[in-house]
Amino acid sequence: MLVNKHQNIIDNAVKANHERTFYSQYPEHPKAYGEEAHAKGVQSYQQLLGKPFKQLLQTGETGWSGEEVSPYTREVLGVTYPVFAIGDLLKKATEAGKSWAKVPVAERAGILTETLERIKDYFFDIANATMHTTGQSFMMSFQASGPHANDRALEAVATGYHELQRYPPTLTWEKPMGKTSIKLYKTFKPIPKGPGVVIGCSTFPVWNTLPGVYADLITGNPVIVKPHPKAVLPIAIAVSAIQQSLQDNGYDPNLCQLAADSSDHLIAKELCGHPDVKLIDYTGGSAFGNYVESLPGKTVFTEKAGVNSVILDSVTDLDAVIQNLAFSVSLYSGQMCTAPQNFFIPEQGIKTANGQVPFNDVVQKFKEAVVGLVNHPKMGAGTLGAIQNDSTLTRAQEARHLGGKVILEGTPVVNEEFSNARVCAPTILEVTSADTAIYEKELFGPVILIIKTRDTAHSIQLAKQMASKYGAITCGAYTTDPSAKEKIAEEMNSVFTPVSFNLTGFIWVNQHAAFSDFHVTGGNPAGNASFTNQEFIVKRFVWVGNRELAE
Amino acid sequence: MLVNKHQNIIDNAVKANHERTFYSQYPEHPKAYGEEAHAKGVQSYQQLLGKPFKQLLQTGETGWSGEEVSPYTREVLGVTYPVFAIGDLLKKATEAGKSWAKVPVAERAGILTETLERIKDYFFDIANATMHTTGQSFMMSFQASGPHANDRALEAVATGYHELQRYPPTLTWEKPMGKTSIKLYKTFKPIPKGPGVVIGCSTFPVWNTLPGVYADLITGNPVIVKPHPKAVLPIAIAVSAIQQSLQDNGYDPNLCQLAADSSDHLIAKELCGHPDVKLIDYTGGSAFGNYVESLPGKTVFTEKAGVNSVILDSVTDLDAVIQNLAFSVSLYSGQMCTAPQNFFIPEQGIKTANGQVPFNDVVQKFKEAVVGLVNHPKMGAGTLGAIQNDSTLTRAQEARHLGGKVILEGTPVVNEEFSNARVCAPTILEVTSADTAIYEKELFGPVILIIKTRDTAHSIQLAKQMASKYGAITCGAYTTDPSAKEKIAEEMNSVFTPVSFNLTGFIWVNQHAAFSDFHVTGGNPAGNASFTNQEFIVKRFVWVGNRELAE
Repeated sequence: MLVNKHQNIIDNAVKANHERTFYSQYPEHPKAYGEEAHAKGVQSYQQLLGKPFKQLLQTGETGWSGEEVSPYTREVLGVTYPVFAIGDLLKKATEAGKSWAKVPVAERAGILTETLERIKDYFFDIANATMHTTGQSFMMSFQASGPHANDRALEAVATGYHELQRYPPTLTWEKPMGKTSIKLYKTFKPIPKGPGVVIGCSTFPVWNTLPGVYADLITGNPVIVKPHPKAVLPIAIAVSAIQQSLQDNGYDPNLCQLAADSSDHLIAKELCGHPDVKLIDYTGGSAFGNYVESLPGKTVFTEKAGVNSVILDSVTDLDAVIQNLAFSVSLYSGQMCTAPQNFFIPEQGIKTANGQVPFNDVVQKFKEAVVGLVNHPKMGAGTLGAIQNDSTLTRAQEARHLGGKVILEGTPVVNEEFSNARVCAPTILEVTSADTAIYEKELFGPVILIIKTRDTAHSIQLAKQMASKYGAITCGAYTTDPSAKEKIAEEMNSVFTPVSFNLTGFIWVNQHAAFSDFHVTGGNPAGNASFTNQEFIVKRFVWVGNRELAE
Repeated sequence: MLVNKHQNIIDNAVKANHERTFYSQYPEHPKAYGEEAHAKGVQSYQQLLGKPFKQLLQTGETGWSGEEVSPYTREVLGVTYPVFAIGDLLKKATEAGKSWAKVPVAERAGILTETLERIKDYFFDIANATMHTTGQSFMMSFQASGPHANDRALEAVATGYHELQRYPPTLTWEKPMGKTSIKLYKTFKPIPKGPGVVIGCSTFPVWNTLPGVYADLITGNPVIVKPHPKAVLPIAIAVSAIQQSLQDNGYDPNLCQLAADSSDHLIAKELCGHPDVKLIDYTGGSAFGNYVESLPGKTVFTEKAGVNSVILDSVTDLDAVIQNLAFSVSLYSGQMCTAPQNFFIPEQGIKTANGQVPFNDVVQKFKEAVVGLVNHPKMGAGTLGAIQNDSTLTRAQEARHLGGKVILEGTPVVNEEFSNARVCAPTILEVTSADTAIYEKELFGPVILIIKTRDTAHSIQLAKQMASKYGAITCGAYTTDPSAKEKIAEEMNSVFTPVSFNLTGFIWVNQHAAFSDFHVTGGNPAGNASFTNQEFIVKRFVWVGNRELAE
């Protein structure tokens, strides 16, 4: 039994979920997977190019479609994916869901862990595919789409394993009635709501997709994965691994289907609106996110746009802080939903262990650190990665016209390995606190705004207002003052925004660790869901209790 | 500390919630509260009549209002309640909520249990008030508004106590990095979403209100109770007990405020629409329920209308079954949200241990059992209670014109104790399966529809369709055939409707026991919430985690 085979993994994950201390089932370092894995992955990725992707176990396609372009080579990948009629996808999902709903949750957890182990075999293929669709560096592609995504998926499996076994499936209820009693035989069943649809994005096609996929599956729901048409390959490989593993173990591969579409004929709206679809997980822009949240009769989990802030009050070692922040804003060219955008700095500058550093000096140091990093021959290219698409590039390069003072222009940066790569330095603008029209928007990509405030209280007020009105996934704060720290925590937490204090060295505000950090709180406009709190699981099924008179 | 004082109660409740075996903190038999309690309760209830209700600890009222009429005496109670400006209620709630949010959950559980113990002192006052506002019999008034309501409230407290302490509040996270490691100090806080509003109904003013009140409070939210203007007194007494207990123990009584209104000037819409209101619990008709569910930016918990079915297939002892069902439909004149309305009986009749009983004979037996019960000198009045309002009475008495064949007319029934009581026998109609226009509606009150079907498969199909389209809170089923039983369970559960099988004797489909039976599943149009599953608690707060670099 797969349950027994993986019991240890599942038990560890359940424990980690509760304790929230460090835990990882899938090592994040590529070397943990053997010396040859990297080279093999490049090879098998290259063998996928220029062909129809035939690894899926789905049948009945109405055509083939593919339009991916590498942000590094700017060449078309040439991979095409089968396209299916929406009614056909739902019919197969519903059919597959019928028997899946009856599979005990422990058995579901067993086979789902087995599918994760199968995905592991493709980590390097997925990493290369992620790199050449999203523009992430190889290392981020490997970690985010490989071990980190699998850990987040396992987190959902473990939460479901725990929640669905919360009550005894059968019991005898006996109510004393004087000298006699009434006995009822009761059953409690978690009935799945499904089918589910998971809508992916172009920057984190696996990491943002697998949690919803595994949350649907562990709660007994079939799932249809609708990737972004510009970032299909990484998740197509993962879905094909899931399907193969399901089939090998006697389960219907249609429990997890891929529904690729094309920019000419996007299907997300029609798919989400289909009356049989009951669960929707969505990552992407706020306009469509708000639309799916408003659909009646659907249970919806979203991660949308937000405006992340950094509040600078006082520090011990300003250089260490600036280095940390320069990396945070440069990492994958600000295309992370957790990347900081708005830096609130008091006009009187920052208190440090070596005295007050004036505002302009802080800004100058920050600029220099960013310039130094992005032009660093060893660090620059790997940190920035490439920009996923032309509109992000254009927005970043046009940002200098937004207003305020241009501190750093987003000029092109050379990537030695890929001379065609879409890379530019971050644009840094200094604006006043009155320029809300500039800094209240998410400027996705490498655009950083430094906002001069009256003082830290003013910084907190503005950062809170942004999070409350426009959403925030993270907030970084630097202070050596306990009362400022308490105030920042209280105010930002009150708008359901987590705060990372005083990070320096090899840990950044952008990082959320599976089994410990909740990703998105679900409480502000940046999204209504959270990886992986109870809601992310318990809203996908309904407890139904039957009773029978026990004779 | 109140936590320590009540630790045992809380621990027992948490355990019961998980095990779902029989448990009750508050005995349901009036005699458990002493021989004199009943008489004293009548007396103190009578002392409340004809006066302003001054027991609340709220100030700043803009006027007084009251319009309750006893369904038994048809006399005006003459109690008036203070009326407050909505902005004032919210301001006080928000203020009270600030410090409450910081009270540790264990301490909250302690004081909330203390408030329940204080309510217990008023069980008999509340019982008389419930009787003379809802029309419930004394016994039902006592049980539903007293011990059963308190048990449901404690259930919410216990679920919150468990959920909010699910994660360690502080911990050190240490990620190995080769020979070194990164250490973060982390905190996890459940941040309340509040303030909350709980909108009550006229038939179960306490039972349907306390779960939302205590769910809001245990999760750190202040709450405003908006009762139905025709059933204020029972919950006003409970709220005043809560306020007194809060104040006696050093907490702000405005954590739980009463917001009475009048039929001339209903405030539910304005109150729910207030931007500061974040949580809404609602019991009542579907039109307003659907409206509150659609409000953006609010977390909403509803119990709305539904159509409950009984599927009759085969029985051992038909008389025992018929007696049980006659009581179920007569109890409180069908004014329970759990009362069965639609009886699906196959045209070929019912198989029994003594052979097949023809359809017409089953109907005749059912009619006779109902007539026998409602006219029974000892049983009748106490079972029927009184009809809460004139429109329910009119609907019940006009039901004979709905169509189909009139089996029993809803003629007046005499209540010996209260000659003016609003009482009538249930109307029983026999209709065909084609008469969906008649039986697809909730006919709240004493109206029973017997639907002649082709066979049990047809009965299941129709009952399922009703539950799916119009909602259902309960389903009763009688079958001695294991395969029919499995099919009924599977089909009704698939539309998130629980099934009670083969109930006879002193247990009825109408009854849902705290700590064991979920009340409403939340999965079909009868309501989106459930007393008390995880969702009922975890949607009222947001987990927010802060991190700090540990030196």
